[in-house]
Amino acid sequence: MDLPQHVTTIEPLDEQAREAAKTRMNQLTKPPGSLGRLETIAMDLAAMTANPQPAVTPPGIIVFAADHGVTAEGVSAFPQEITAQMAKNFLHKGAAINVLASQIDASFRLVDIGMTQEINHVNITNKRIKAGTANFCETDAMTKKEAVSAVQAGFDVAQMMIENQGIRCLILGEMGIGNTTASSAMIACYSKKDPEHVTGPGTGLSPEKIKHKQHILRKALQERTINSNDSIDVLAKVGGLEIAGITGAMLAAAAHRVPVIVDGFISSTAAVTASNISRRARDYMFIGHQSTEPGHRLAIELLNKQPLLDLHMRLGEGSGAALSFPIIQAAAALICDMAVFDDLKSY
Amino acid sequence: MDLPQHVTTIEPLDEQAREAAKTRMNQLTKPPGSLGRLETIAMDLAAMTANPQPAVTPPGIIVFAADHGVTAEGVSAFPQEITAQMAKNFLHKGAAINVLASQIDASFRLVDIGMTQEINHVNITNKRIKAGTANFCETDAMTKKEAVSAVQAGFDVAQMMIENQGIRCLILGEMGIGNTTASSAMIACYSKKDPEHVTGPGTGLSPEKIKHKQHILRKALQERTINSNDSIDVLAKVGGLEIAGITGAMLAAAAHRVPVIVDGFISSTAAVTASNISRRARDYMFIGHQSTEPGHRLAIELLNKQPLLDLHMRLGEGSGAALSFPIIQAAAALICDMAVFDDLKSY
Repeated sequence: MDLPQHVTTIEPLDEQAREAAKTRMNQLTKPPGSLGRLETIAMDLAAMTANPQPAVTPPGIIVFAADHGVTAEGVSAFPQEITAQMAKNFLHKGAAINVLASQIDASFRLVDIGMTQEINHVNITNKRIKAGTANFCETDAMTKKEAVSAVQAGFDVAQMMIENQGIRCLILGEMGIGNTTASSAMIACYSKKDPEHVTGPGTGLSPEKIKHKQHILRKALQERTINSNDSIDVLAKVGGLEIAGITGAMLAAAAHRVPVIVDGFISSTAAVTASNISRRARDYMFIGHQSTEPGHRLAIELLNKQPLLDLHMRLGEGSGAALSFPIIQAAAALICDMAVFDDLKSY
Repeated sequence: MDLPQHVTTIEPLDEQAREAAKTRMNQLTKPPGSLGRLETIAMDLAAMTANPQPAVTPPGIIVFAADHGVTAEGVSAFPQEITAQMAKNFLHKGAAINVLASQIDASFRLVDIGMTQEINHVNITNKRIKAGTANFCETDAMTKKEAVSAVQAGFDVAQMMIENQGIRCLILGEMGIGNTTASSAMIACYSKKDPEHVTGPGTGLSPEKIKHKQHILRKALQERTINSNDSIDVLAKVGGLEIAGITGAMLAAAAHRVPVIVDGFISSTAAVTASNISRRARDYMFIGHQSTEPGHRLAIELLNKQPLLDLHMRLGEGSGAALSFPIIQAAAALICDMAVFDDLKSY
């Protein structure tokens, strides 16, 4: 089961635009290098967008919501019903990501890509692949066909936001009780590490419950016979529908030269997946923040990137990525709007 | 020479407001603790502003500009004329801080508190104490009376912005060629460390020039006989007029329960000074970022605070503080605007 070619075709970075940005950066009215990482970010944005004076506004946020059969194994601090409750909260603009979206003037879209409970609301995008994954302790989370469909769904939603709403920077988040378990399983596959190294408290497990989560993960990884070189196989056997959706959205952003801000552990797991599917996808990514979930560090290592923020967050929803957006926005604004030293002569 | 009482009278934090904020924080629709440092920041804001649902908008930025006689010793990568040139750049909105101010919708004010060159412009606030400090290698940088007047000037400007413009969060920056040298001297006094530990490249000195800067600082500190327990004495002997101005502005913000965002090395040196003048002043401060200037780490240690960002910046102007404002703003918005779990029942 392969992804269609248009999903995996991504152009290389524009190194000429990066060079032009670098030249401009060194003419701006500041000591050379004094803006630190903002200078690198501005040059990265130039290379991503093929524009030495890049724009990242308006930003768009997509939150993919889905359920996980593995919650039956008692791997989460919250019951599965919370996924739909929080989806309703997003629609009522009461969640953290809504508040953060408003602060950065972002378009916000909630996508049901496979919750157990269907919600009828004008503002939910229906891309339901199935009513939650199966319990991957017992059987594959989904078929490879479903995994591909979920990636394609994510691609389509992101492409629509880029083409129809003119989104210039994409922030990707998720809601899905059980999804740190799926992400831990996937990162264990990709990194070939024991679940011990990638399993954390999620929304708030006790140390004993974390041990149980590790046990469940070891069992699932033994029984599912996963080809860790085939990301669609990893997604299908132990992944999640929202992780697949984010993966597709990241591929769409890269295909359209739109910078992506990766959020925490789940979003980064999707980022590794997208990067395994199409190596160039990672060139269009920033890591918004370092979360406290232990697997996140390993996921970031696989991406070989530095997070922008480290504020001990572990909420998901795209919250850490949204919070880091003003840094990306500032980098773009500085290279576009600052005076150059030659301007000073005319004052 | 003492500061008038109104400059040093600061109320303690409101611990009841903090407790009320904590209660609300734990009712918000998120796993407990999952917003990490944003939760602590929100509670700190509540305690500072005496309001469990604190507001930090609109923010205000004050940049104090002044010159330093010690530049005659060849301690800076840029010539003294750059202070006035950059002041003009601020007035033309071409500097980094202008771009960042615009992004966060901040009121911006440039204060001439003692540049060698006087600039006539409708948007510059004239609080000139003297035309730059004296070379503190040869004599005291200023008199204690001038130091007190500069602190009072900074207090007055900040108080005016708070009272007349309704500023709810204050960001403080500076422009002054030579001011890392003055800050290094002051932090060496406060920490009782050799200049070696607090001296860095500033706007871009070579390693040999840094050695020269250390030599100049050792000489000045030996010859000036400073009482390091008297911050006004430290300011007068080896300080700077803009550092005194920021100190006063910080005291005004604290006196009005307005949160302050401290910028890099120079701004943090003023923060230590304000905190030494009135111990409670530091309770109203956030450290916007960790700069690469080596003395900054020591200044932050003296304040016993954690910076919000670490992006390897070293520009000054208040740039790192302005860049961190959206984090403070997000913390306030989240505690005010997120739904609580009880709200979910009505959806």
